[in-house]
Amino acid sequence: MKKLIKNGTIVTAADQYEADVLIEDGKIAAIGKNLSENVDEIIDAKGSYLFPGGIDPHTHLEMPFGGTVTADDFETGTIAAAFGGTTTVIDFCLTDKGQPLKNSIQKWHDKSQDKAVIDYGFHLMVGEVNERVLNELPKIIEEEGITSFKVFMAYKNVFQADDETLFRTLLTAKEHGALVMVHAENGDVVDFLVNKALEEGNTDPIYHALTRPPEAEGEATGRAAALTGLADSQLYVVHVSCAEAVEKIEAARKKGLRVYGETCPQYLVLDQSYLEKPNFEGAKYVWSPPLREKWNQEVLWNALKSGQLQTLGSDQCSFNFKGQKDLGLGDFSKIPNGGPIIEDRFSLFFSEGVKKGRISINQFVDIVSTRIAKLFGLFPQKGTIAVGSDADIVIFDPNAERTISAETHHMNVDYNAFEGMKVTGEPISVLSRGEYVIRDKAFVGKPGNGQYLKRKRFEASPDSSAEKVLQ
Amino acid sequence: MKKLIKNGTIVTAADQYEADVLIEDGKIAAIGKNLSENVDEIIDAKGSYLFPGGIDPHTHLEMPFGGTVTADDFETGTIAAAFGGTTTVIDFCLTDKGQPLKNSIQKWHDKSQDKAVIDYGFHLMVGEVNERVLNELPKIIEEEGITSFKVFMAYKNVFQADDETLFRTLLTAKEHGALVMVHAENGDVVDFLVNKALEEGNTDPIYHALTRPPEAEGEATGRAAALTGLADSQLYVVHVSCAEAVEKIEAARKKGLRVYGETCPQYLVLDQSYLEKPNFEGAKYVWSPPLREKWNQEVLWNALKSGQLQTLGSDQCSFNFKGQKDLGLGDFSKIPNGGPIIEDRFSLFFSEGVKKGRISINQFVDIVSTRIAKLFGLFPQKGTIAVGSDADIVIFDPNAERTISAETHHMNVDYNAFEGMKVTGEPISVLSRGEYVIRDKAFVGKPGNGQYLKRKRFEASPDSSAEKVLQ
Amino acid sequence: MKKLIKNGTIVTAADQYEADVLIEDGKIAAIGKNLSENVDEIIDAKGSYLFPGGIDPHTHLEMPFGGTVTADDFETGTIAAAFGGTTTVIDFCLTDKGQPLKNSIQKWHDKSQDKAVIDYGFHLMVGEVNERVLNELPKIIEEEGITSFKVFMAYKNVFQADDETLFRTLLTAKEHGALVMVHAENGDVVDFLVNKALEEGNTDPIYHALTRPPEAEGEATGRAAALTGLADSQLYVVHVSCAEAVEKIEAARKKGLRVYGETCPQYLVLDQSYLEKPNFEGAKYVWSPPLREKWNQEVLWNALKSGQLQTLGSDQCSFNFKGQKDLGLGDFSKIPNGGPIIEDRFSLFFSEGVKKGRISINQFVDIVSTRIAKLFGLFPQKGTIAVGSDADIVIFDPNAERTISAETHHMNVDYNAFEGMKVTGEPISVLSRGEYVIRDKAFVGKPGNGQYLKRKRFEASPDSSAEKVLQ
Amino acid sequence: MKKLIKNGTIVTAADQYEADVLIEDGKIAAIGKNLSENVDEIIDAKGSYLFPGGIDPHTHLEMPFGGTVTADDFETGTIAAAFGGTTTVIDFCLTDKGQPLKNSIQKWHDKSQDKAVIDYGFHLMVGEVNERVLNELPKIIEEEGITSFKVFMAYKNVFQADDETLFRTLLTAKEHGALVMVHAENGDVVDFLVNKALEEGNTDPIYHALTRPPEAEGEATGRAAALTGLADSQLYVVHVSCAEAVEKIEAARKKGLRVYGETCPQYLVLDQSYLEKPNFEGAKYVWSPPLREKWNQEVLWNALKSGQLQTLGSDQCSFNFKGQKDLGLGDFSKIPNGGPIIEDRFSLFFSEGVKKGRISINQFVDIVSTRIAKLFGLFPQKGTIAVGSDADIVIFDPNAERTISAETHHMNVDYNAFEGMKVTGEPISVLSRGEYVIRDKAFVGKPGNGQYLKRKRFEASPDSSAEKVLQ
Repeated sequence: MKKLIKNGTIVTAADQYEADVLIEDGKIAAIGKNLSENVDEIIDAKGSYLFPGGIDPHTHLEMPFGGTVTADDFETGTIAAAFGGTTTVIDFCLTDKGQPLKNSIQKWHDKSQDKAVIDYGFHLMVGEVNERVLNELPKIIEEEGITSFKVFMAYKNVFQADDETLFRTLLTAKEHGALVMVHAENGDVVDFLVNKALEEGNTDPIYHALTRPPEAEGEATGRAAALTGLADSQLYVVHVSCAEAVEKIEAARKKGLRVYGETCPQYLVLDQSYLEKPNFEGAKYVWSPPLREKWNQEVLWNALKSGQLQTLGSDQCSFNFKGQKDLGLGDFSKIPNGGPIIEDRFSLFFSEGVKKGRISINQFVDIVSTRIAKLFGLFPQKGTIAVGSDADIVIFDPNAERTISAETHHMNVDYNAFEGMKVTGEPISVLSRGEYVIRDKAFVGKPGNGQYLKRKRFEASPDSSAEKVLQ
Repeated sequence: MKKLIKNGTIVTAADQYEADVLIEDGKIAAIGKNLSENVDEIIDAKGSYLFPGGIDPHTHLEMPFGGTVTADDFETGTIAAAFGGTTTVIDFCLTDKGQPLKNSIQKWHDKSQDKAVIDYGFHLMVGEVNERVLNELPKIIEEEGITSFKVFMAYKNVFQADDETLFRTLLTAKEHGALVMVHAENGDVVDFLVNKALEEGNTDPIYHALTRPPEAEGEATGRAAALTGLADSQLYVVHVSCAEAVEKIEAARKKGLRVYGETCPQYLVLDQSYLEKPNFEGAKYVWSPPLREKWNQEVLWNALKSGQLQTLGSDQCSFNFKGQKDLGLGDFSKIPNGGPIIEDRFSLFFSEGVKKGRISINQFVDIVSTRIAKLFGLFPQKGTIAVGSDADIVIFDPNAERTISAETHHMNVDYNAFEGMKVTGEPISVLSRGEYVIRDKAFVGKPGNGQYLKRKRFEASPDSSAEKVLQ
Repeated sequence: MKKLIKNGTIVTAADQYEADVLIEDGKIAAIGKNLSENVDEIIDAKGSYLFPGGIDPHTHLEMPFGGTVTADDFETGTIAAAFGGTTTVIDFCLTDKGQPLKNSIQKWHDKSQDKAVIDYGFHLMVGEVNERVLNELPKIIEEEGITSFKVFMAYKNVFQADDETLFRTLLTAKEHGALVMVHAENGDVVDFLVNKALEEGNTDPIYHALTRPPEAEGEATGRAAALTGLADSQLYVVHVSCAEAVEKIEAARKKGLRVYGETCPQYLVLDQSYLEKPNFEGAKYVWSPPLREKWNQEVLWNALKSGQLQTLGSDQCSFNFKGQKDLGLGDFSKIPNGGPIIEDRFSLFFSEGVKKGRISINQFVDIVSTRIAKLFGLFPQKGTIAVGSDADIVIFDPNAERTISAETHHMNVDYNAFEGMKVTGEPISVLSRGEYVIRDKAFVGKPGNGQYLKRKRFEASPDSSAEKVLQ
Repeated sequence: MKKLIKNGTIVTAADQYEADVLIEDGKIAAIGKNLSENVDEIIDAKGSYLFPGGIDPHTHLEMPFGGTVTADDFETGTIAAAFGGTTTVIDFCLTDKGQPLKNSIQKWHDKSQDKAVIDYGFHLMVGEVNERVLNELPKIIEEEGITSFKVFMAYKNVFQADDETLFRTLLTAKEHGALVMVHAENGDVVDFLVNKALEEGNTDPIYHALTRPPEAEGEATGRAAALTGLADSQLYVVHVSCAEAVEKIEAARKKGLRVYGETCPQYLVLDQSYLEKPNFEGAKYVWSPPLREKWNQEVLWNALKSGQLQTLGSDQCSFNFKGQKDLGLGDFSKIPNGGPIIEDRFSLFFSEGVKKGRISINQFVDIVSTRIAKLFGLFPQKGTIAVGSDADIVIFDPNAERTISAETHHMNVDYNAFEGMKVTGEPISVLSRGEYVIRDKAFVGKPGNGQYLKRKRFEASPDSSAEKVLQ
């Protein structure tokens, strides 16, 4: 099975050039000028960019949270992702204390295997560290190819782990080649402030933001970075939202530490004032960490531009406004945290980042795809357009204009946090391992076609070690 | 004329993969698995890396300085460069106050055109700013394709320009699309300290370092960055040697400024103690800025690793120990500044950076080639291995071991600053626009084959603007 | 001649306590509980603070500037100062290039000696450094007791000195025991921006602020601090207005450098928006550095509170709105820089600082008096209420309320920059060397009673060296 | 009862002058030139400084720790303190979880009341926060005058409190006017590293330092400061030992936070290499935090000089080498932490700080006495020489030379950490509330003469609020 994409402009994290792309058996077989092959299909991509498919490193599909379950499962979620130009997701596998980790992973396999329309992997939550867990982790790396562990510094009495757990996870990660991810907010402080606000009768959505101050995120970020340095390990800070956290990441990197930061579209274009929308609409904008004062946006953009933040995740965690978000009517702490972003992450970032001149088009590819693949052991199978890589390709019209809306989006949720926002640039067709998932803006894929990805160990990442030097 | 390089491992600033490379008419025509073409020559690169040719953004060939002239001219210099894996140099064209800039450029064309064995471009020194100069600069950008201007903040009464000159050059650069380069040391302070040392009878080479303290470099770097911010322009700090300067660059980038920094191999592996070598041998290690205390090396490596320094130049400026360096016997201030590095920049950096695990192999390519091409308007013609780019390719054995020595180097100078240092990794063959310059470690090129490169404006650099977004 | 002040609350930079103060021959002879002496006069200060008289380290009395002369001379200026609680001023003596410094000093003696109603000293401007100047400076320290030199980094082609001048002044100051003061703005940048604004027809007062950006002040402050470190000397940055400058001072102090910063009341309570007042009223608020965006105020207060800024000067430099400020109608660059603050510095700072809880009352005394005395060689003669010190005492009602207004102030100028501002706390009576200058809010002093103060060398300052340790 | 000290040089945190001091009923009644009173005793202090008695804010007398008890009790400890020029100590009262705080305080009263020869107060450890504790704290402030609470971030499973405890203690402190003190080291990390070292057979004293890295102190310091900002409360970081911690305190103060830092003599003059002394002698130098690499000393001195650290404590916690320190033979974690410093804190700091020109003599007084009195609610009763204050006075010969030695010291312990160190400056006589405790270097006081000090609330401190402004 061969396809030839002609006349497109290939863009990678380093390059931009016009050439034809030959796809064979799902992989990129050749790139060249005027390739003429005997192929099954020729696609004309004139006037379009060919981007490596986006990789979303941060999704919560069909995840139980606060007595409800996220609205998008692996089917609706990955379909929406594909529409938006994303061909790989890495979802968070929650674990239960006292239970074998394998059990939790099996649950996630069950949720995903017949549903995903694009390839996917899992991160694993580490909520406790003991002999059993320490013995199981290396096996999971080896057998499941799960090479990233998430530790929560917030959500007291639910997910929150103590510093010993974080520190030992970092040491294990170093020893066995994994990357530790943290949700960095000081849960003790947040928990206290939330209870205090409720006691004082402050129950509106805006109190979600006011009880999770940026200093609590900055503190936890600095602490995680310090522990990483002490463990000589590697850290990935998810959903960085504010200047206080960026500063801590910059300081760690300045010392040469392997500390990486992810931000999300919501922190780049929305702000705290959205939580004050009337009629409980503020609940639509409840994320943790919360949206921040607007001036933080420039700090985040500068950090992406100068390379101090490395990736963009969606933190996809969708809940319907009716029936889910409204669980928090009269008590902001009961509003399910999160929102639907998986579909718009890629094109919104292109529009706000590249079209507005804030980052280069190569940086765009690096931030939404390549660097993620490298950090999470998927490179070069994923994350680039290069000979030998999977043909996960987005044919992208950089000049198409569209307006984001719940009425037209493909996520299984009744609102869109970016409702009404105009963006420039849109995926036209999307291929996963050489097969169309989206063709001319229509879904043509099939649930179950997505494959589970066993990922390589962290040390294998060519952007952080020399391991791949030819021997 | 077609060539096919088979079985090599291609490495770019983003990618690493095995594939064949088809070269046609000096350009890369296709990259693919098992390419079989009717070609003139097949090169087997099994076990080798294929790197884009190195670009040296900082050379002083046949340059008059302090009453003498640098020992390597465009012939010996570019031959040595090619041996080392460098296929493009950008040389500094000095100017004379009161003279048309064109005259100086013509001099540099005269020196280079029949001699260079690889492609080359020029930076232009701006020593004064007045109506004549301001009128001429846009023409030089347009007609000569010289899109980078160098301003000296040191060498009082020789090259040193005042802040007004720097500021107006920055404004002009912004308006017309050029990049301003600075030699950042506070010349007033240095000049005073040098004279004071000499008055006090301190004439040995070590006083070269002691009279150019790191604070003087840090101060000037911070000043140039501040002026860049005020002008909303772009700045490239050459030969960053110390923590004080790195800090200023980091602070500027944190604010989102377009400030870039170059360091050099000598600052990464040598240190101030070399200037204390007996028998005047310290003179071999006289650069400006001077070699620093050893702990600065880690700061520089960390800055490269975290992306706060972007490029590696050689600051090639060779003088023979006998007959040139010894002009400074009894007066360190008369030692010609500079050393022979053009040949070893590339492989020494591979050895110390990639092999020792300090940077990834993609970062290596970015730092010695790709980013330089982008910053200086040569991309994607130069700086990458991609379809459509010039076939400037280094076939590199990553496991070859050699010892650097003046006895074996190809520079026209009687010593090597890295004498006796063992490095791993060596260029075997080097192609410039598809033609061998080095073949199996032998020079097979021809003086005059190197072409002058008209460079694009700074705004065209895909890593710093969105201009290249398809319209 | 003896006076006894009973029942007041004495406040020094360290202490606060109720006690009686016995004054004898202009000096404080004893402090105690229920002192009963045979005295000429008993003053009841119940309910009042007794502060050491304020010291204003930064005034420009009867100073020529831009074709006009400041509106207050040593008579009106020092009377207003005394009304405000200030008993010592240190005025800036301008010098002319090529002229003996002594000549300039004599001019300043001529202006002041029959006019001043309180004690006074001089700082000396250093506009050039050459053999003549370097020979004369030590004599001036010795003979005139002038131990502080001012170098301008701005006012290009007028006062501006180059880095060599600053550096050599710093070295001389170190050698002979003086403190170097800088006006820190990058004059090259400012000069260019001013001319450009005028060329573009931007002539309103607000352009004064827009053409003197905070980065230009930050840059110059950092440069002066760097040179101070290189010279191992001491620096006093006058009129610090913004975060950028504060950061540089903090960084220098963190390294252990003897770098000190002064701010002024105008920067603490006014902001850039005042320059936009209609009907050319903005001209009343033209200082250099200019008023800044409002958020800088908090940075300045925090720096005072945490000890990173040390003193408060007035930068008294009064010009009438009619007849002087209006020289700049149609050309902001011709608006004489400066304003009338000498009278309100002390009580406004008490009101905004102590009454509003931003600083402690001991810090207040330190910042407006004690630290200034120590830095400028006047301590312990001036700057404290201690046995043996001059009886320069302010009897201050902390609860009196008044409204600042040109109608009631005593400065010889037709407006007040703080017009309408309500302040709490007011000097009731003011003694200079034991004699009333102000008594029950009325002036009872005499021009010519003020004495010229020969100041001690910088090394003698007990806050920066151990020299005064008993031998 | 009246005493008159004649001809001494009084030094306070602000002043230095020669005057006579009249003492009446234990308080300073008058200060003046040539005071002639009908007194019971005249003391000639010619050639001596009169310092306010030192205040040691950090002692552990007769404290159980690790199965033993500190070697000095309130009798030997306060006698030694007095010999050294200290007239007030504030000792740490340990508490037991689940027990009324009052019980612990009563224990401390029992230990101290018949033994102390100088005045003393207590800090109270807060190890847990619950309704009972939260109800009791305000009563303890009110009834016991204990206005400073200590929270441990280290000593896991012993003293260590979690972030919620620290945060709620900070909030309570803010509400009721207390100062929160922290031992800032990340106990989770330290605990892990200690166990790991022991498991690996690394049992020597040096491992005490290696398992408590400076990053663990920096992290905890930053966390405590962040929580303080979030609580808008006040924090005092005890025994700051390294650059990492200083940076966090500086950053907090720069934001205007009420964050204060104490260092100790051991960190200023000793370093990590002492722990490597042979024959288990390293155990003598086991403090937590541990001694650091030598370069930290300059950072600490600079922070004291620039006002970023405010006080000097001894952390007196003496254990005999024989019989106590040797509990840790073969297991460094069993070495009792701490050393005997109470006696030498004052004069050693004078010698190293003032005599060597690192700080001024006024700073010396502020750091060892005045600021401590202000922060801990003892001012102006203690901490100064001013009319109305307690006559706690040290008559100090600044030129006396002595050698520190266990053979001559008065602490009840068999070694001295500064053995053999020469210091200049020595207390000759020491008065507590006007009565000799030390007279001509001999102890003349009496156990039980020391009085318990009920301290004022934090808000009353004139150096951090405006509360004391006259109403």
